[in-house]
Amino acid sequence: MVEIFSEKQNGFTWLDVTNPTQEELMEIAGEHAIPRSSVKDSLEPEHLPKFEQIEDKIFIIIRVLDQEARTKAGSIQQASRKIAIFYDKGLLITIHRSEQPLLRDLKTKYVDTGKVQKENEILLHIVYQALKTYEEPATRFAEEMDVYESAIFLRKKVPDILKSVYKVKRRASVCFRIITLMDDVVRRLNELYKKHYLAQDLLDLQLRLSILYNEIVDESNHLLNIYISFTSQRTGEVMRVLTIFSVFFMPLTFIVGIYGMNFDFMPELRWHYGYYFTLAAMLLITAVIYFWFKRKRWL
Amino acid sequence: MVEIFSEKQNGFTWLDVTNPTQEELMEIAGEHAIPRSSVKDSLEPEHLPKFEQIEDKIFIIIRVLDQEARTKAGSIQQASRKIAIFYDKGLLITIHRSEQPLLRDLKTKYVDTGKVQKENEILLHIVYQALKTYEEPATRFAEEMDVYESAIFLRKKVPDILKSVYKVKRRASVCFRIITLMDDVVRRLNELYKKHYLAQDLLDLQLRLSILYNEIVDESNHLLNIYISFTSQRTGEVMRVLTIFSVFFMPLTFIVGIYGMNFDFMPELRWHYGYYFTLAAMLLITAVIYFWFKRKRWL
Amino acid sequence: MVEIFSEKQNGFTWLDVTNPTQEELMEIAGEHAIPRSSVKDSLEPEHLPKFEQIEDKIFIIIRVLDQEARTKAGSIQQASRKIAIFYDKGLLITIHRSEQPLLRDLKTKYVDTGKVQKENEILLHIVYQALKTYEEPATRFAEEMDVYESAIFLRKKVPDILKSVYKVKRRASVCFRIITLMDDVVRRLNELYKKHYLAQDLLDLQLRLSILYNEIVDESNHLLNIYISFTSQRTGEVMRVLTIFSVFFMPLTFIVGIYGMNFDFMPELRWHYGYYFTLAAMLLITAVIYFWFKRKRWL
Amino acid sequence: MVEIFSEKQNGFTWLDVTNPTQEELMEIAGEHAIPRSSVKDSLEPEHLPKFEQIEDKIFIIIRVLDQEARTKAGSIQQASRKIAIFYDKGLLITIHRSEQPLLRDLKTKYVDTGKVQKENEILLHIVYQALKTYEEPATRFAEEMDVYESAIFLRKKVPDILKSVYKVKRRASVCFRIITLMDDVVRRLNELYKKHYLAQDLLDLQLRLSILYNEIVDESNHLLNIYISFTSQRTGEVMRVLTIFSVFFMPLTFIVGIYGMNFDFMPELRWHYGYYFTLAAMLLITAVIYFWFKRKRWL
Amino acid sequence: MVEIFSEKQNGFTWLDVTNPTQEELMEIAGEHAIPRSSVKDSLEPEHLPKFEQIEDKIFIIIRVLDQEARTKAGSIQQASRKIAIFYDKGLLITIHRSEQPLLRDLKTKYVDTGKVQKENEILLHIVYQALKTYEEPATRFAEEMDVYESAIFLRKKVPDILKSVYKVKRRASVCFRIITLMDDVVRRLNELYKKHYLAQDLLDLQLRLSILYNEIVDESNHLLNIYISFTSQRTGEVMRVLTIFSVFFMPLTFIVGIYGMNFDFMPELRWHYGYYFTLAAMLLITAVIYFWFKRKRWL
Ligand SMILES: [Mg+2]
Ligand SMILES: [Mg+2]
Ligand SMILES: [Mg+2]
Ligand SMILES: [Mg+2]
Ligand SMILES: [Mg+2]
Ligand SMILES: [Mg+2]
Ligand SMILES: [Mg+2]
Ligand SMILES: [Mg+2]
Ligand SMILES: [Mg+2]
Ligand SMILES: [Mg+2]
Ligand SMILES: [Mg+2]
Ligand SMILES: [Mg+2]
Ligand SMILES: [Mg+2]
Ligand SMILES: [Mg+2]
Ligand SMILES: [Mg+2]
Ligand SMILES: [Mg+2]
Ligand SMILES: [Mg+2]
Ligand SMILES: [Mg+2]
Ligand SMILES: [Mg+2]
Ligand SMILES: [Mg+2]
Ligand SMILES: [Mg+2]
Ligand SMILES: [Mg+2]
Ligand SMILES: [Mg+2]
Ligand SMILES: [Mg+2]
Ligand SMILES: [Mg+2]
Ligand SMILES: [Mg+2]
Ligand SMILES: [Mg+2]
Ligand SMILES: [Mg+2]
Ligand SMILES: [Mg+2]
Ligand SMILES: [Mg+2]
Ligand SMILES: [Mg+2]
Repeated sequence: MVEIFSEKQNGFTWLDVTNPTQEELMEIAGEHAIPRSSVKDSLEPEHLPKFEQIEDKIFIIIRVLDQEARTKAGSIQQASRKIAIFYDKGLLITIHRSEQPLLRDLKTKYVDTGKVQKENEILLHIVYQALKTYEEPATRFAEEMDVYESAIFLRKKVPDILKSVYKVKRRASVCFRIITLMDDVVRRLNELYKKHYLAQDLLDLQLRLSILYNEIVDESNHLLNIYISFTSQRTGEVMRVLTIFSVFFMPLTFIVGIYGMNFDFMPELRWHYGYYFTLAAMLLITAVIYFWFKRKRWL
Repeated sequence: MVEIFSEKQNGFTWLDVTNPTQEELMEIAGEHAIPRSSVKDSLEPEHLPKFEQIEDKIFIIIRVLDQEARTKAGSIQQASRKIAIFYDKGLLITIHRSEQPLLRDLKTKYVDTGKVQKENEILLHIVYQALKTYEEPATRFAEEMDVYESAIFLRKKVPDILKSVYKVKRRASVCFRIITLMDDVVRRLNELYKKHYLAQDLLDLQLRLSILYNEIVDESNHLLNIYISFTSQRTGEVMRVLTIFSVFFMPLTFIVGIYGMNFDFMPELRWHYGYYFTLAAMLLITAVIYFWFKRKRWL
Repeated sequence: MVEIFSEKQNGFTWLDVTNPTQEELMEIAGEHAIPRSSVKDSLEPEHLPKFEQIEDKIFIIIRVLDQEARTKAGSIQQASRKIAIFYDKGLLITIHRSEQPLLRDLKTKYVDTGKVQKENEILLHIVYQALKTYEEPATRFAEEMDVYESAIFLRKKVPDILKSVYKVKRRASVCFRIITLMDDVVRRLNELYKKHYLAQDLLDLQLRLSILYNEIVDESNHLLNIYISFTSQRTGEVMRVLTIFSVFFMPLTFIVGIYGMNFDFMPELRWHYGYYFTLAAMLLITAVIYFWFKRKRWL
Repeated sequence: MVEIFSEKQNGFTWLDVTNPTQEELMEIAGEHAIPRSSVKDSLEPEHLPKFEQIEDKIFIIIRVLDQEARTKAGSIQQASRKIAIFYDKGLLITIHRSEQPLLRDLKTKYVDTGKVQKENEILLHIVYQALKTYEEPATRFAEEMDVYESAIFLRKKVPDILKSVYKVKRRASVCFRIITLMDDVVRRLNELYKKHYLAQDLLDLQLRLSILYNEIVDESNHLLNIYISFTSQRTGEVMRVLTIFSVFFMPLTFIVGIYGMNFDFMPELRWHYGYYFTLAAMLLITAVIYFWFKRKRWL
Repeated sequence: MVEIFSEKQNGFTWLDVTNPTQEELMEIAGEHAIPRSSVKDSLEPEHLPKFEQIEDKIFIIIRVLDQEARTKAGSIQQASRKIAIFYDKGLLITIHRSEQPLLRDLKTKYVDTGKVQKENEILLHIVYQALKTYEEPATRFAEEMDVYESAIFLRKKVPDILKSVYKVKRRASVCFRIITLMDDVVRRLNELYKKHYLAQDLLDLQLRLSILYNEIVDESNHLLNIYISFTSQRTGEVMRVLTIFSVFFMPLTFIVGIYGMNFDFMPELRWHYGYYFTLAAMLLITAVIYFWFKRKRWL
């Protein structure tokens, strides 16, 4: 479906193409002299971000974070949607498979109101808004990590905390990778339109996102390690309690076992104070073990 | 064996040489002025990818993923097969030890039909198709990793899951290394034939494969770590159960042992409520341990 | 709130703007020809350090470590406060949200006394003092790490030592990241004012801080690893004690259990030396286990 | 000891100096204008590879893998032997402490037969052959790793497997470091003698060795990690068996202990079906534990 | 304290300044036109190595390893002492807080004997000797590591081996960091005095030290990992022994407990062969467990 978002009277033409068939795209390409290789890239929904300049023509592929797909997305293609942008003097063509509200928003806000009269300004706005889709999730991921971190340190029992941290890590590292891949696009646009204030904003946004996601991935790695440390520390403590109890009770249980034997001839059993002697002996053994443990600093 | 895939009438000559003896190769080299060092490299089946330009002549070595060898291959040489390509104005010579269907396919599709009339276009097609052999396994590896990941998180008992993840990791990192080594070839070809649409596609494919394999290797490392965490977490839990049981039962077993002794003179045994007192004492001990555990948050 | 820190009679104007409304800032921007993008950056409290030069005008954002926020800060934005600096020939404008004593101190010390007559010298002083705020915490962090290290090696029981080390690590790595981001600002200022002695001091300070924080982060990683090693080493030792006791007492307890059975017909029970034979047998078993352990080097 | 491997009639002079005293070396240096610093470097047996060019003179130090020292060598100096090479127009001097068969072999093969008439060709041959000494051990290391890997995965009991893997890793990383240090020598020679086919072969060999050793070091790191995972997985399994047995038997052993007490007044002991009730109770407890374990998926 | 190590008659002046007050230094600076910033750097005992060139004047800060401080030093400042060097045509000024024997040695050896007539040669000697102080400890660290390594592999019981390895690692990494920081000084001096043989020696020494310390740090990391592996492997083994004993004895102890109960009516107790049947049953159970363990390969 081809929509005309802006016509020549605005100073430039903007065609928005949603989910085109190969034929539709071929036709548009023919009209506007879009290179064959760009058409092919436009048809590939899994294409990674790229910037291509052929003489004055610019062909850009960016990826917009998909708000719905977010929770289950484990790869770049699952987590984001492609927008192909073809730019020529006075002409802007945006191609994408699913509906992209950010494009319509830009049209309403800047083109319909006549605020923007140059097609390259719209180009910068599109890339800026595309990057912006990664900003809110970054904050959300950071907040999730804070929840898990405090849970780990306060030793709350959160079910499947390992799994949750791992999932945030995985999604954050996918975003980080996309942002890193957009770096080239942002840098080239910044060079071309150096004087435009948005060009600098683009660079700043890209840097900020890159640092934000890097922090989240780092944090998740730290947390996983800390969690394992806590687990192993705890196992060690449990172990110590088990060992202390065992070492105290095993000799005692052995002794009472001895005098539980039914031999006809066991002189101690006949002694008047045999029972008390035995109790005293066990008390002594307990004391010895206690001091041994004290010296070993296990108690 | 030398086959003529294309003759001069097509605008260029393409010789395909399968498993040549040193003499055969020497003869061809003599005829077409192939440098001695290139002949030597062509004879080495283990040679790594490379790009060499001598004046207008180009000598390329690429490696094609071997479909059969895939499951057991742990090194670059085991996992892939070499194709040496010698290119000169109007001349293309491809040299390989085993039969390479991708070359014959290209001949049938582009040369026999007359679609391609330039030898450098065939060159780009060969390298592109060679890289393509790494694409399908990448998807397959990613899917395998998904299976293992869900098995680990859902705590299914998959036999030898560690081994399986490790094997995928190893094969993926071999592929990743080959693709990284092909980087130079791809970049140089892209520079030489910048205007050809395939040159850009080559770059894109190389980047995509590089990212795909990198993701798989990353993922496998993450999974191995997570698996170890789960194991140690589980051991900790098992430990806690063992310790709880031991701490509850060891004192009780000791007490019943005491009154199982056969001393002639043990006044408690004669008391009328001795048995009930003992039971009460054991209940008390159990309660004390219970509250101690509660405070320690082990229960 | 706009304060005039220096007027033209001093050779330059310095305006210090605290917590401005957007309107206030717009007005100042209009008067002094500050670019629109810089105004926008000035209003963002979370902006990362940056250096921008537009012809002769310089726009800098630096971040000052927040003395109060220090203990709980886990991200760049929580740990530090932004100062935006706009510099033009004869003009210096500093913009910040919260009160920044370091600016007032510089005014009192250098401007009021007439010691500094050039606006760029004040600029260098501001950035230098901003970096200086990271110096004292670095020393404090290093000292804290020393306390934790000695606690770990002397096996003192410090509650929550893992947590403490992790917190220092996290705060240090936030500082390290800010300092790394200030690198560009420092380098560009050093190029512009190469001859000024402060320019070189800036570089030195930045390098020193970078190394200090890097050392702290390294140290904390080492300590966490060492701590885990100690824990696991200790668990191993505890385990060995438990196992030794169990292996000694389990066979003995079994034997005394046998002769504690109440079968009517158990010939051993009737033997005159049955009891002594049994004791001797248990002694023998103990000796066998003892030598087995000795050979295994567990004792 | 100085030997003349080639005299001027061959087009160049080649002096091979074995284990020279300082005086011998000084004399040769005086005759052939070898710089003082090169003489000093030649006398140091521990010197690392380097390439130095003084006008037209070239001074190279390479290190040849020592075949005997291989099994116990943990450092660059223990694992390899130095050869210093001084090259000037028409002159080649090779200096080394121990006998170096590869030099004599080159003399026999290329100089005596008159195959090589230029001194720089011999130079390339020497460096190539020196690098070649690292090739066969790489293959051997890789094979050793394969043995250890299969032993680990098939859970064969190989004594000291950790130690063996660690030793291969250490030796391989020493080789990797030497090869990396030779990189500069190889690159500079390649630039100087670009047209010679051996110059390209040198680069290829260096790349191949670098990748081979890198793979071995990687592989050994992977294996050590996997081994630890297996160990901890196994410990977890052992633990589970221990816990299952303990949890089943501790309550039962406690119950039989109760009715083993010798209190005069224990009504249950007098009941006709006391024994059978007790057996039934124990069966019930066993069943409860069994289902609890089933639900916990420990059985 | 200012000492004149060389006067103009030697061709140059060398002033050695030990522990100067600020005033002394100011005076010297005034006389010899030392820049204000260099004076400030000279007064800071903690300053990191640096190279600064102002026109023809050179200002260098190096750090000499402190022989006494070595065993307890955990940071660059604790481990090493600063020497500031100011160099101008015909003038050398060395400034340091504590007495530096290496300077006096150089004076005695090269200046007093008249061997060295140029101030830049002395400069090279100073930096070379400063680097040399790091050489002997590197060898000592490597030897210490060898002792710990053999102790770990031969499973000798060395007290606090973890701590010792960690301390070597920490001291070695401090040295490594200083040497890395001296890299700039060495490189710049090498450029300035390319023709002097010492300039090349400086580079070689720096590279050698860098590799030596890098090897030690690597080695210590490897050893710590291996140690942890051994510990966990050992714990696993201990665990297995414990589990085997427990699994054998728990069922047996339970059975003897049953027939130790005092129920009035327990038919088995009255059977003539009850005891022998019970013993046979226990033997059977032992055999079953034995074969189960055999199959599990725990025995
Ligand atoms: Mg991931
Ligand atoms: Mg990752
Ligand atoms: Mg970044
Ligand atoms: Mg960053
Ligand atoms: Mg990271
Ligand atoms: Mg543990
Ligand atoms: Mg454990
Ligand atoms: Mg491999
Ligand atoms: Mg691998
Ligand atoms: Mg790898
Ligand atoms: Mg890539
Ligand atoms: Mg990548
Ligand atoms: Mg990923
Ligand atoms: Mg953080
Ligand atoms: Mg952090
Ligand atoms: Mg970090
Ligand atoms: Mg630094
Ligand atoms: Mg550093
Ligand atoms: Mg090593
Ligand atoms: Mg290493
Ligand atoms: Mg390499
Ligand atoms: Mg490589
Ligand atoms: Mg590696
Ligand atoms: Mg474990
Ligand atoms: Mg340190
Ligand atoms: Mg350190
Ligand atoms: Mg380190
Ligand atoms: Mg190094
Ligand atoms: Mg090096
Ligand atoms: Mg080593
Ligand atoms: Mg363990």
